[in-house]
Amino acid sequence: MKCSKCGAIAVINMRQHRRRLCAEHLVEWFMTFTQRAIDKYDMFAPEDRVLVAVSGGKDSLALWDVLLKLGYQAEGLYIGLGIDEELGYSDKSLEMCHRFVSNHHPDAVLHVVDVGEEYGQAVPHLARTRLRGQGRPCSVCGLVKRHIMNRVALHGSGDGGFSAIATGHNLDDEVAVLLQNTLHWQTGYLARQAPVLAERNGLARKVKPFVRFYERETAAYVLVLGIDYIYDECPFAQGATTSYTKELLNELELKSPGAKQQFYLEFLRARDAGKVVFAERASVELHPCVRCGQPTTAGDMCAFCRLWE
Amino acid sequence: MKCSKCGAIAVINMRQHRRRLCAEHLVEWFMTFTQRAIDKYDMFAPEDRVLVAVSGGKDSLALWDVLLKLGYQAEGLYIGLGIDEELGYSDKSLEMCHRFVSNHHPDAVLHVVDVGEEYGQAVPHLARTRLRGQGRPCSVCGLVKRHIMNRVALHGSGDGGFSAIATGHNLDDEVAVLLQNTLHWQTGYLARQAPVLAERNGLARKVKPFVRFYERETAAYVLVLGIDYIYDECPFAQGATTSYTKELLNELELKSPGAKQQFYLEFLRARDAGKVVFAERASVELHPCVRCGQPTTAGDMCAFCRLWE
Repeated sequence: MKCSKCGAIAVINMRQHRRRLCAEHLVEWFMTFTQRAIDKYDMFAPEDRVLVAVSGGKDSLALWDVLLKLGYQAEGLYIGLGIDEELGYSDKSLEMCHRFVSNHHPDAVLHVVDVGEEYGQAVPHLARTRLRGQGRPCSVCGLVKRHIMNRVALHGSGDGGFSAIATGHNLDDEVAVLLQNTLHWQTGYLARQAPVLAERNGLARKVKPFVRFYERETAAYVLVLGIDYIYDECPFAQGATTSYTKELLNELELKSPGAKQQFYLEFLRARDAGKVVFAERASVELHPCVRCGQPTTAGDMCAFCRLWE
Repeated sequence: MKCSKCGAIAVINMRQHRRRLCAEHLVEWFMTFTQRAIDKYDMFAPEDRVLVAVSGGKDSLALWDVLLKLGYQAEGLYIGLGIDEELGYSDKSLEMCHRFVSNHHPDAVLHVVDVGEEYGQAVPHLARTRLRGQGRPCSVCGLVKRHIMNRVALHGSGDGGFSAIATGHNLDDEVAVLLQNTLHWQTGYLARQAPVLAERNGLARKVKPFVRFYERETAAYVLVLGIDYIYDECPFAQGATTSYTKELLNELELKSPGAKQQFYLEFLRARDAGKVVFAERASVELHPCVRCGQPTTAGDMCAFCRLWE
């Protein structure tokens, strides 16, 4: 298998792009294609300060790496969830982030918020003891992460805010969510799912520069660059609906290469062109939480602050 | 496994309905549920003459059987496509229709149109020799069937027309089409897919009373009633995209019972409620074909008539 650009040995065959690339040209293509997504969806500019949510996994580390190489002011945010489960999951994840910085970008800034230290209880304990967590730790975890990301994005570590939160969601992630939302015709979610969520009423702008990359492409990128990352899935996420949906979509892709990409990009195109219109959820009044000040639709106190009551 | 209604041995477990039924109560439920679909979607009334498109397969024979038992004026239409492929496929299919009539409804009227006899060439020959058929005999076959069904529905066998064409499409069929259309965001098709297509400009009304039945439910119905049918899939349909889509959906259903039903019914509900709006294809002028008089969007002559040029 030869590189489509230079004839050297290719490390990846991307059937949906009809392209095979060697390590060098993969890295080049990957960076160019990220830049194009940033431009196409008008995500942020070089003068913007961008907060990259890093988990220690391949997608978020690849994203941080590319943004730094492209010259963006990208700082990392690691949220310590306190997930151990006899695997030291969270500790290892943080270690991967530190290793990434020291091996690849020694000058990069990594913000770390440890949920247990800062708020008194880690996510597994919250999930076990709060009604919201019963049988679904991912729900508590998502709430905690969204709150902290938003807090740091708006105010930084006391050093001013960021223009956007960038997450490493890839095409496989987005397509799995899209299929789930479509199978249930969750029109409110379908109206909003997008590579960019604009800032509104105290909620920071969110961008996903990797929405057009297949997971295997980000995996190849970190592999050829020797970026070490945490391979294991979160022990709580096992058996999650999205994992199953991803399996189904992988079968589809195998049978019909490019099917995932087409499903997602055609969705965006058809919606942008008004060929499909999804009703937004009835707009609910957002007001500031009396305790933390972040916007909420609930009563006086937001769902995050109620976790600690 | 016991019948949810009478405690007798159940022959089917319908997890999405949380119901297990014995042979007797399955038949009762099946008839009631068909009647409810006819009412819910306002398909036809007892005074209407209904043309049931029968292929000799389980779904269409079950449909004809139920409609007759419910007291509707249902006549059958069998279209002889001339598919042999060393299996005598079409001959066997017709034989099943005749056997159904003589064993179950000796007074029922079966109209037979043999494509080869009436038009000079059977479908396999057309598919081999016409541009439209190259590599996709199903396209020619669909065109021929739609034309003949419409012709007979509008004019009968010289004995006046029918109020509607009823086809045996079941939930599995509809969901496979829905998923295909959704994966490609074919908004024009998504705007139109429905249990009822209204009559318009010379195109007969089409109804699908079985859209809420899983294939295994119609299979159980014909089994307990001893209705014999052609088991084999059409030899030309093997490997068709819908077969593959059905496999994927079966995996989904196994993991999440009721998922198919929910996908389809939520689609109809969301669209009816205006929560999702699909743009119709730009409305094209329909005019009568100069040869057959059926409506066409093409030039002077419709696609069916051009087959014979």
